Order: sequence, then structure tokens, then C-alpha cells
Amino acid sequence: MSDTRPIGVFDSGIGGLTVLRELLQTFPNESFIYLGDTARLPYGSKSPETISRYVQENISFLLARDCKCIVVACNSASTQLRLPNEFSCPVFSVIDPGVEAALNATTNYRIGLIATEATVQSQAYQSRILKQRPEAQIFSQACPLFVPLVEEGWHEDPITNLIVFRYLNHLRDQQIDTLIMGCTHYPLLTDAFKKVFGPDVKMVDSGKAVALGIQKSSEIRFANPEPNQRLETSLVLAFTDLSARTKQISNYILRDPKNELFLETKKVTFEIVSIG
Amino acid sequence: MSDTRPIGVFDSGIGGLTVLRELLQTFPNESFIYLGDTARLPYGSKSPETISRYVQENISFLLARDCKCIVVACNSASTQLRLPNEFSCPVFSVIDPGVEAALNATTNYRIGLIATEATVQSQAYQSRILKQRPEAQIFSQACPLFVPLVEEGWHEDPITNLIVFRYLNHLRDQQIDTLIMGCTHYPLLTDAFKKVFGPDVKMVDSGKAVALGIQKSSEIRFANPEPNQRLETSLVLAFTDLSARTKQISNYILRDPKNELFLETKKVTFEIVSIG
Repeated sequence: MSDTRPIGVFDSGIGGLTVLRELLQTFPNESFIYLGDTARLPYGSKSPETISRYVQENISFLLARDCKCIVVACNSASTQLRLPNEFSCPVFSVIDPGVEAALNATTNYRIGLIATEATVQSQAYQSRILKQRPEAQIFSQACPLFVPLVEEGWHEDPITNLIVFRYLNHLRDQQIDTLIMGCTHYPLLTDAFKKVFGPDVKMVDSGKAVALGIQKSSEIRFANPEPNQRLETSLVLAFTDLSARTKQISNYILRDPKNELFLETKKVTFEIVSIG
Repeated sequence: MSDTRPIGVFDSGIGGLTVLRELLQTFPNESFIYLGDTARLPYGSKSPETISRYVQENISFLLARDCKCIVVACNSASTQLRLPNEFSCPVFSVIDPGVEAALNATTNYRIGLIATEATVQSQAYQSRILKQRPEAQIFSQACPLFVPLVEEGWHEDPITNLIVFRYLNHLRDQQIDTLIMGCTHYPLLTDAFKKVFGPDVKMVDSGKAVALGIQKSSEIRFANPEPNQRLETSLVLAFTDLSARTKQISNYILRDPKNELFLETKKVTFEIVSIG
């Protein structure tokens, strides 16, 4: 049975587009609705109570749009995900796949975690890792300036390298062998991280990990085309605040590694929506 | 006639506390309600429509709390201030006093403006200056990283100096003699700005300017104590999201120049409020 209803994805803003990019690559026959809560971003500096309320409202929005599953493409939001038992719709967070990927990657069980203040404080990654591997040591660092640096477009910049070094130097001294990039903006800074850690520390990108997790999931039915058929699919990019800059960064992030625009292979609609 | 009702002040978050600090110094016999919309900050990267909605909601909140006047202590919010004719309550924005102070300070009419993206784009400062002085030249620069740097506590930091230099160097080359700090966070970076411009460029702090403007205003009645009487006053700090960090930065900003806490001279209450 084929299910052509869209996959819902939400984030506090545009960072989750790095997750959407992985999903678009992994599931070319699926349609997507992406919700970016740009009117209330960022989440990562806000309290658990406020983030929790925003998460509930975003999930309700995507359910009302008839999504067959929901991907919480924001780490800060994922830490405040509480679903009622027997919740009708499968919901995937970035944290469990990130934990799994980190535990598969590490050999010395010295793991670095970089994320927003909210994600680090929540202990969501730390407690899950320790539950599976009590001997693991986790060295965490909140990096509040990384998101604004990415949004300013200073991905490859000596000043960004300095700030990355300031935040991450002590993690290197701890001889971690794996680094969890616990915020969806951070994969855009991978090159700067490699300058601090060298080539041997493995970088865990939760976007890649969640796409893999969904692919293996038995909870959802995919859109199954006939052999040699390519389904017509759509991509809705819904934002609670849509500036020219948001459109511009969206286009930048959604380029695939070969630098081709995913946007060109789908029917794409930008929408401004009201939430809360 | 004495009017002891509080003065309402609002900002997207904590930056407006630099304005409140000036008001507390200028008006020791007044009570204040400060509203920081921390659940939805920042405003400076959001669209005019979204900022405009937030401004309306914040004003309604302060009116419901019986404020005798309202100070919009946020530049991005001030640019989207539209009041109906014969609006019952005096509303003061930071922009007009900032423009006046800049025009009083400049002698060569080459004026620098640094602010958020929203404030620069709105042309609010530029159009007011040119209306009064068509010969003036205004050199503007949006500085999206200054607010996160201040909130990270890196006020006095070599990295902050580098970023300040990156943003402001071209303004120095334009030989401005006056710089409008068009965002309420920026006065906390004054020392870094002076490193770029030297001692001769005058810095306009809209917080100071608005306090002066209110003092001269005939629109409001103040709380008038009897001679030698000190009125009992209160300060409510209401936030839409209240983290430990917000409390900590509030205390830091509200210190007066002699480093005494204003908070100690008033009955102070922190509140969490819901808006929108």
C-alpha cells in the first residue's frame, strides 16, 4: 500500500532545512511540508516550558495538514517532546538517531556534544548515552554564537574559526573521538570544526542519522511508485515569518552536495502561516 | 497633581533594560513596569508585519496594567509603531530622541547608524534625519552579531573587538563625527566602538536621549513627592520567558554607573506573563 501523504518536518527556523535536505535526498518520491517557526526563533535560548508549548503548537499544525509522520528537525524542540500514549502519528526526533550514530562511531567512549544552551541543559543526549553505555564520558559545550554566525553567512571566515576554537578547544584537550553536532545549524560549520579537531574525530550529523532511522522504520508507509515511475511530489516551505533573507538562506541550504537545487525537482510553495 | 501610576516600558528582551536604567536614574520617584518579550525575541531579524503585531500586543498588555505612559525601549519595535489618532496614552519611542541627539551632536553632518537589520531597512532614522537636515549624509550598517555577543557576555573581548572592527571600519573611513547606537544592546559595547573610532566620534545612546525627552514632555504628570519625601516605588520586571540567565543579565544591566543595584532601592517583582 502506497501512502502519498506528506512527511511533516518542523524546526524553530531554517536550521532544520539541513535535515530536510537529507530527507529530500533519501526519499525522492515523498512530499514534504516544512514548518519553520521563524516568528519565534530561536528556541535554544528559551525555557523548557516555552519550548514545550511551541512544540505542541507546531505538531498540531502539521497534523491539521494531514502529515503521515512528523520529524522534529530541531534539537532544542526534540528535548521537550512529550507525546501522549498511543499518539496516532509517528514522530521522529533527531536525538535518538544522533545518540545511536555517536555510539556506533566512538571507540574510546569519549564523546563531545555541542548544542544550544537548552539542549545541553536538558541532558537529553547525555542521559540517553549513559543509559546505553554507563562507561561513556560526555563533554558538552553550549555554543550560542554558532547559530547567529551561520545566519550571518560567515560559514567560512577567520572570525568564525576563532570563535569555534574558543568554544571547542577544551573538548579537543579531552581527546574525544566523536563529536555530536547537536543543533541543525552546525553541519554548515563542519569545516571549521575539522580545523580544531583534525580529520580523525568523527562528526555526527543528526540530519543524516534521522533520515537513516526513518528509512528503517516500520511505523510508516512510503509513497511507492511503480517500477520506473517517478511520482509527482511537492514541497511546502511554511514559515511563521518569511523575509527575503529566509528565502535566500533556504535556497542556499537546500542545494544538494552536487550543488543542484532540490527545489528544482519538486513543486515548491512558500507559505506564511500563523501559529500560537 | 501627582500621578503615581507606573511608567510602562517594553522591549523584545533584555536590551531595553539599558533604557530602563536611564529612566530609573532620571525618575527616582516613579514606578515602572518593564515588559521583555523574551519568548519571541529577537525582533531585529523579523519582518515589519510580525514586529508590528508584537508591538500592538505589548502595548495592549501595558495599557491593561494601567500605565500612565509607554516607552518603546526597542529600536526595531519603534520602527513599527503605528498609533491611532487621539490615542489615549502618551507613547515615547527611542527614535525621535535619538535623531534629535544626533543632530545636536554632529557638526559635519556625516552620521553613522548601527542597528539591527529591521531598523536599518525601515529607514526610520534615515528619513527623520533627512527631513530635518537634507544635507546630512547617513552611513548605516546592520550588525546582527552584536546582540548575541552581548547576551553571551563577551562585552570586553578580543573577538568582539574584531567583529566590531569588521562591521564598523568602513564607517570610520567615511569620517563620521557622530554614531547613533540604534539598538538598546549596543551601549554595552561602547568601549569596543571607541577602539574603532577613537575619542572624537560622539556616541548617541537613545536610552539617555529618551529619558531626557520624557523629562521635558508636557504630556505626562509625574509622581510628585512633598519636599524631602521619598515616594515608595515599585519595579515589575515582566518577561514572556524567564530563564535564570535572563535574571542574571537583568541584574547586571540594571547596575547604575556607581555599580550600585537600582534593584535595591525599589520593591522589585519578577513576573512571567503570557502574550499573543
